[in-house]
Amino acid sequence: MNNDDFLEAYLKDRCDIVEDALQRYLPDEDSMPQELHTAVHYSVFSGGKRIRPILCLAALEACGGDIATGMPTACALELIHTYSLIHDDLPAMDNDDFRRGKPTCHKVFGEAIAILAGDALLTEAFVLLSQAQKVRFPAERRLAVIQEIAHAAGMAGMVGGQALDMLAETVEPDFTGLEQIHRRKTGALIEAAVKTGAILAGAGEEKIQAVCRYGTHVGLAFQIADDILNVEGDSALMGKNTGSDATRGKVTYPALLGLEQAKARLAEAVEAAIEAIAAFDSRALPLRVIARFIMERKS
Amino acid sequence: MNNDDFLEAYLKDRCDIVEDALQRYLPDEDSMPQELHTAVHYSVFSGGKRIRPILCLAALEACGGDIATGMPTACALELIHTYSLIHDDLPAMDNDDFRRGKPTCHKVFGEAIAILAGDALLTEAFVLLSQAQKVRFPAERRLAVIQEIAHAAGMAGMVGGQALDMLAETVEPDFTGLEQIHRRKTGALIEAAVKTGAILAGAGEEKIQAVCRYGTHVGLAFQIADDILNVEGDSALMGKNTGSDATRGKVTYPALLGLEQAKARLAEAVEAAIEAIAAFDSRALPLRVIARFIMERKS
Repeated sequence: MNNDDFLEAYLKDRCDIVEDALQRYLPDEDSMPQELHTAVHYSVFSGGKRIRPILCLAALEACGGDIATGMPTACALELIHTYSLIHDDLPAMDNDDFRRGKPTCHKVFGEAIAILAGDALLTEAFVLLSQAQKVRFPAERRLAVIQEIAHAAGMAGMVGGQALDMLAETVEPDFTGLEQIHRRKTGALIEAAVKTGAILAGAGEEKIQAVCRYGTHVGLAFQIADDILNVEGDSALMGKNTGSDATRGKVTYPALLGLEQAKARLAEAVEAAIEAIAAFDSRALPLRVIARFIMERKS
Repeated sequence: MNNDDFLEAYLKDRCDIVEDALQRYLPDEDSMPQELHTAVHYSVFSGGKRIRPILCLAALEACGGDIATGMPTACALELIHTYSLIHDDLPAMDNDDFRRGKPTCHKVFGEAIAILAGDALLTEAFVLLSQAQKVRFPAERRLAVIQEIAHAAGMAGMVGGQALDMLAETVEPDFTGLEQIHRRKTGALIEAAVKTGAILAGAGEEKIQAVCRYGTHVGLAFQIADDILNVEGDSALMGKNTGSDATRGKVTYPALLGLEQAKARLAEAVEAAIEAIAAFDSRALPLRVIARFIMERKS
């Protein structure tokens, strides 16, 4: 089996496992208003690639852990990612009508329910991370995971990044500003995904640091690839209009560096990610192929 | 010193302690965009009565704990309360222009920053609850606190209650529906406030249950009192227009029960709260006088 076949089978398998777990972990209909339940499920099960949970599980595996033990954390990461998409798409923010080829949450359920669905998913992530679990990790390790994820999601991470992104629409873009935005908006949660995987596996400080460096580079690669896809991707595959960043005058890597330079920067980031975990054994193979996948993905 | 003097001095003292702690715990300017920092501080320091943190500390004290150890939890409760006010006031939700006599967050900073300030505060609460603290409670106890608060804030609690409230504006109000909304929207976090205080103090199951019952009744009393103040309160003291619920056709206790019946229900709830902690010693005096204060407050 070559790397491409391995990757395809691996991602499919992991995606299915994560979908199953999300179905199990999300509260059932009786525990919340029907409309909110429908909106939450609509947004969570809308064809996401589950990259953050998959990265978390791959890091856990690379550090010698059992992936079954990481499912609540992996799913919490996806809930937080989904909440951030719902809120970012709102009229007051990016005002997007489509996401993955489907109308965005507020287009279907209205703004009030969309805001609340986002709030609910963010909060539910912490319910999931804190509740009694079949697999009993040391409580200190679970607190460390909660702290990492809360920090990545918060003012210094995703929320701060989205605020910078909003404010950047009114000022002249520059490279430092762009990196700041993306490190927080996309990078922080990706880094938290692999770091929490390593923490759950009980990895030592050196391994945790190596996985964090991998996460930083992969997060950057992911954002550059996204920007490039927005310029030259196939809008049918993407499920949204390509070229929308340029129309909106959004700060992107291709806009600032040119397309060729942006691609070179992407390749560098992927190499740096793989280099960061060079000392890991073959259990880190998934982390390595995922890094390449980010560069080559078509949607 | 009679009860009124004691109460006034007590609430003032606790309010000051909580304000100081909030100032210390909120991330500084360097860690987030200036505009977001300003919006967060504007909303957190806008004259809140700090009822939830004060209840948490009072329950901690009533169960024999040292209040200094409860400050991160007390402050996390206030951050979550503040986030919920910011999001509830948004144009897509209750569309309120004023809160405590000042323009609401979105009126000053715009909707995008208001949504993000709410998201930031909700997330920051979990940073605060999970981060390494000077006072080292057993990690299991800290996880239990996170779980209680996340559950109270989430789909089964505050978010679910606000969704019900939004949906209720389009259907005929009834009493069961009203109780459902308030138990989730206001009651859940107040109950979590006293319950987490008891958990932090290391109280036994019986005491925790008693404190929970106190919280349920006090939460109900708080909501009825709020509804009554909206009918007959002094708008200058309240910092918002009275009578706004009626104009909006909102489901309230006075609207459903009539004013006199609503007042009788309030008095019953306060008595039941005090009865729930009848077996506690004099360290529960603050819990007792706070219950009475809720009935008698003017704003």
